[in-house]
Amino acid sequence: MTRAAIVGAAGYAGAELTRLLLGHPDFELVLVTSAADEGKRVSDLYPALAGCNLVYAPHDAAAVAAHAEVAFLAVPHTAAMAMAPLLLDAGLTVIDASADFRLRSPDLFAAWYATPHTAPELIDEAVYGLPELWRALLPGARLVACPGCYPTAALLASAPAIRADVVISSRVIVDAISGVSGAGRTPSPASHFVAANESVAAYKVGSHRHTPEIAQGLDDLGLPHPSVVFTPHLAPLGRGLLATVYLEAEPGLLPEEAHAIYRDAYAGEPFVTVCEPGMQPATAHVRGSNRAHIGVALDESSGTLVVTSAIDNLVKGTSGQAVQCANIVCGFDETAGLNCPVPVV
Amino acid sequence: MTRAAIVGAAGYAGAELTRLLLGHPDFELVLVTSAADEGKRVSDLYPALAGCNLVYAPHDAAAVAAHAEVAFLAVPHTAAMAMAPLLLDAGLTVIDASADFRLRSPDLFAAWYATPHTAPELIDEAVYGLPELWRALLPGARLVACPGCYPTAALLASAPAIRADVVISSRVIVDAISGVSGAGRTPSPASHFVAANESVAAYKVGSHRHTPEIAQGLDDLGLPHPSVVFTPHLAPLGRGLLATVYLEAEPGLLPEEAHAIYRDAYAGEPFVTVCEPGMQPATAHVRGSNRAHIGVALDESSGTLVVTSAIDNLVKGTSGQAVQCANIVCGFDETAGLNCPVPVV
Amino acid sequence: MTRAAIVGAAGYAGAELTRLLLGHPDFELVLVTSAADEGKRVSDLYPALAGCNLVYAPHDAAAVAAHAEVAFLAVPHTAAMAMAPLLLDAGLTVIDASADFRLRSPDLFAAWYATPHTAPELIDEAVYGLPELWRALLPGARLVACPGCYPTAALLASAPAIRADVVISSRVIVDAISGVSGAGRTPSPASHFVAANESVAAYKVGSHRHTPEIAQGLDDLGLPHPSVVFTPHLAPLGRGLLATVYLEAEPGLLPEEAHAIYRDAYAGEPFVTVCEPGMQPATAHVRGSNRAHIGVALDESSGTLVVTSAIDNLVKGTSGQAVQCANIVCGFDETAGLNCPVPVV
Amino acid sequence: MTRAAIVGAAGYAGAELTRLLLGHPDFELVLVTSAADEGKRVSDLYPALAGCNLVYAPHDAAAVAAHAEVAFLAVPHTAAMAMAPLLLDAGLTVIDASADFRLRSPDLFAAWYATPHTAPELIDEAVYGLPELWRALLPGARLVACPGCYPTAALLASAPAIRADVVISSRVIVDAISGVSGAGRTPSPASHFVAANESVAAYKVGSHRHTPEIAQGLDDLGLPHPSVVFTPHLAPLGRGLLATVYLEAEPGLLPEEAHAIYRDAYAGEPFVTVCEPGMQPATAHVRGSNRAHIGVALDESSGTLVVTSAIDNLVKGTSGQAVQCANIVCGFDETAGLNCPVPVV
Repeated sequence: MTRAAIVGAAGYAGAELTRLLLGHPDFELVLVTSAADEGKRVSDLYPALAGCNLVYAPHDAAAVAAHAEVAFLAVPHTAAMAMAPLLLDAGLTVIDASADFRLRSPDLFAAWYATPHTAPELIDEAVYGLPELWRALLPGARLVACPGCYPTAALLASAPAIRADVVISSRVIVDAISGVSGAGRTPSPASHFVAANESVAAYKVGSHRHTPEIAQGLDDLGLPHPSVVFTPHLAPLGRGLLATVYLEAEPGLLPEEAHAIYRDAYAGEPFVTVCEPGMQPATAHVRGSNRAHIGVALDESSGTLVVTSAIDNLVKGTSGQAVQCANIVCGFDETAGLNCPVPVV
Repeated sequence: MTRAAIVGAAGYAGAELTRLLLGHPDFELVLVTSAADEGKRVSDLYPALAGCNLVYAPHDAAAVAAHAEVAFLAVPHTAAMAMAPLLLDAGLTVIDASADFRLRSPDLFAAWYATPHTAPELIDEAVYGLPELWRALLPGARLVACPGCYPTAALLASAPAIRADVVISSRVIVDAISGVSGAGRTPSPASHFVAANESVAAYKVGSHRHTPEIAQGLDDLGLPHPSVVFTPHLAPLGRGLLATVYLEAEPGLLPEEAHAIYRDAYAGEPFVTVCEPGMQPATAHVRGSNRAHIGVALDESSGTLVVTSAIDNLVKGTSGQAVQCANIVCGFDETAGLNCPVPVV
Repeated sequence: MTRAAIVGAAGYAGAELTRLLLGHPDFELVLVTSAADEGKRVSDLYPALAGCNLVYAPHDAAAVAAHAEVAFLAVPHTAAMAMAPLLLDAGLTVIDASADFRLRSPDLFAAWYATPHTAPELIDEAVYGLPELWRALLPGARLVACPGCYPTAALLASAPAIRADVVISSRVIVDAISGVSGAGRTPSPASHFVAANESVAAYKVGSHRHTPEIAQGLDDLGLPHPSVVFTPHLAPLGRGLLATVYLEAEPGLLPEEAHAIYRDAYAGEPFVTVCEPGMQPATAHVRGSNRAHIGVALDESSGTLVVTSAIDNLVKGTSGQAVQCANIVCGFDETAGLNCPVPVV
Repeated sequence: MTRAAIVGAAGYAGAELTRLLLGHPDFELVLVTSAADEGKRVSDLYPALAGCNLVYAPHDAAAVAAHAEVAFLAVPHTAAMAMAPLLLDAGLTVIDASADFRLRSPDLFAAWYATPHTAPELIDEAVYGLPELWRALLPGARLVACPGCYPTAALLASAPAIRADVVISSRVIVDAISGVSGAGRTPSPASHFVAANESVAAYKVGSHRHTPEIAQGLDDLGLPHPSVVFTPHLAPLGRGLLATVYLEAEPGLLPEEAHAIYRDAYAGEPFVTVCEPGMQPATAHVRGSNRAHIGVALDESSGTLVVTSAIDNLVKGTSGQAVQCANIVCGFDETAGLNCPVPVV
């Protein structure tokens, strides 16, 4: 068993990490930390984890380094780049679920996150942890930057078409819908049940921080100078994220060819299912799981590829993907701890 | 008081029409019909209308003609074009909430609705009832074709920019989210609470029947040869519809100019609110009301105008708009029966 | 038009009062106050009230007294008893939606609200405003204490049987379910969408402050020394409240007799509907309305009367009832401003 | 591995059984049957089980007997008593999730289920499968009658107090709230999203078929001649069930004594958690899990024990409990296949 710690374990992503590591065959969860909930038991904050008597310890890099071999960071951005260097120096592997090491340009980071990057020397070393697209980079990595939830869905939806070279425009529209857990555990007017319930609305139109991350990923996939229009929406569900991606397709592409590109690209992937032609993914089908379900449709009259991608924002969008990356980094079965069948409805 | 009948009054749209006409100062609701629920009282089917002792009569054009001056049709498509000629011949005004008279090309209708049009001679006479865009056509009309819910939201979101001539591409992407009431009252696997709850999914991607109607409207607004990509989604709310429309904007257009175009276009409109710059509409804010709330954002890096439009699919998207049209047709105050303040949350 | 002010207008109850008074034929809403949201427009806080350009003024008894003839208090408990004396002295009629004047015993108030009553001299004058049960007390009252939401539902469900003298035990069990708006607008962990969604739970078992108020009402109705067991539950709906009341019935009472007692008791009541035998009320049927729907069932094997009562906690449970009381106090039609048909689903 | 079949696998309970057996270390799921969905793949009906390529076979006792050693019946009542004799004769162990063998009196069955019992000779042999209360009966049983969802919650809430002899009245009130999945997968007006959403209502007041089952269980626990008043409610959640049970307590019982009775009774139980004093269980905390969370409160003024019990109706209320029983019957670890940590929110 490899000893693991979760730094920032009391938020939703941290709590889902706690759940996944408690059921993991190769990791032993030895330490959970929380600044705000220090001293409380995990099961007090999350009664769903009844029986878990771990107590939140304070954030303390030295304590983490003393107890764990792998540290999962589920802290807000800026906190991760403060702690990662200390943990790496102490010899730990760091799986970072925050945004701090996702963008490869410190300037872009500074522009979108409104703060300078404090550990730019680590950015180059950080591996962007989206296994289905860049698996080969992960084994043995010291520092993994787990993608944001929207980029995960958007890039899984875009990659096969771009790599198959059937996308003819750099203009990519990503229209996405997320459940409220994406906004985090801290109560706010927007996450109040009465405000969020029975309502859908767009937010941060044209200004969401996942925009440059999606663009960077599209560029990495081979789309030159991508121009990303990204519109996230909030819908009244606890968890779940659906991205609908619009790509301009090569003239003459046939629907069955488009579908085959996706089917072949993800053949053998343990966590990706390409829906049958004509079928669409639903977020409910991946709730609680590390899977992505992808639907492929070609609007022939306009030559537009409309690809939908459903994930659980807290699992494939955050904590599950972190575990999947850690499994690869550590040489475990990639699906270890992630293959429990999930409730059917 | 003008005597009104609702044909097909037991579905959701018909029931909302019932509600609105019961509270209307100028219409007297004298007859409601339903094939499936004949003989039941309105308040049995819809206890929210407790005290309404009207009993559903069978569909019978002669009876409708005998009792009413204005007939609201809330029947499924094909049923409206069967009954409208009889009612018009009897001298009634017909406000049709179905799809039968929306498309001006009988061939297009036949292609999308998989059945020939049986009253093509009336298509030219039918007025497309979207008052904010084509109000002048309505006074005195004999036959009004009320727009579909998605076209209502999409066209309200597109019109000001097109009319202001700042849209430079005929390619328009309409990504929309609807509540489950849009699927009607008949129980189905898709509308089962357990299936719809906690889930979002796209449906009928590239094949929804509102696509040609949106295109026709864009063409009418002055966008030449529109190419519409329309993706509807289902979200777990009872009522509400949000359309997010992507329009390629003239280079150099400034965000404040874009906003001013919308603000000016809808100045004085009793049922349209353009949100302040930076604000986004939410479907909850128009629940139960005939209002449309519109948000205007310009993604400057890609030159894309992202306009969002929130309506209640059962009110501005159907029954409320039908009443608004009827008010104009009959010469009543356009807002009569539609201006009751709605619950705040 | 009678000039009205709402003190504490930015909370949910205050905002629903705003909505109702904006649509009221006999009241003119001249002033809205809010401590926390002073300076904001009503339509900024509640976009559903688009077009309402009233601006929240600070709480200031002198300003209220200067502008209004009737003051609706929608402030938290203790704030109402601080302000009511000033407003009454200035000659205003006060309709208090808070808990401050509901209990007739200052000691009971002090015990349950953990603070002494600061205006005990007004308690005797305050009229408990539940028109269906004690209508005669209201005309001309200076100070009305509007009942809590749970007591409203529980007492409407209990009154006919008690008054008909068919209840043989003083032990009354009130099991109730409320939507999340009952917890108010301030964000909290319990009202977070992710916590409240897809969950039901009891809260404040045996200790909710509405318990003595229900007991006082039962006593007033003629049940000697009532012993009330009250268990409120939270369910994932925005608004709506259902009380299920268990009363031990006189042996030999027949189901049809029980039903007739309720039907007769509420015959002619504009806001109460007794469901047909075998039918049950649903909160959705009264959403947004001032109605109460009541279901009557007799469990013959145990001799238990099981009465259910559905209201909208923000309307009949608070703001609507306040307006209904004010209408009676002022001599207006009791239903003025409250009879707009509500959305059917 | 023991070979298992699920008869009636396409409903919600059958699908959850499928999920649990797919992840079970000791059972191999070899056959799933469905009358209505024969020929479809499990993953077509339940995309959450992507990768499960089992195809629904027709209901055929011979085929089940040929392939499996243990048969789980998730068919509607009457279908189970038709098939169980054939399977038992063929030497299989039968775990019946239907109602057919729960009541020990064939007359009571006939009275409540409106049909004669067709296999009365098996009723005596059937073991009522509620392990926490009657575990000793299970090892080696041939036929297990799994309790209904409401009786599971109600009896777990009642048992400790009755066995500790602190309940002084045979009158027990069970007020319960269930999610919509309890009504099954077949679409109906009541399970339509638009009807169920944003609404709570009681149903089958005084006439629900779980009433005699609860009474039989209370009698078995030692409460003489129990008189059960049972009121189920429907709330807008997919899964989850909360029972609030009212028991008249021995005078002088202290709150801490009441709590200790429950804490001690369930000490060491793998699937029951008694909440800390003052805390209440929420259905969200047991969603997807086989756990029951129980809250104990004593209303001292009335001498009423108010015990709440939260379960997932599809797991501890049906399929999970069936697996738990099967584990005991077969001599496996009681928690096998049931101890995967569940999503935290």
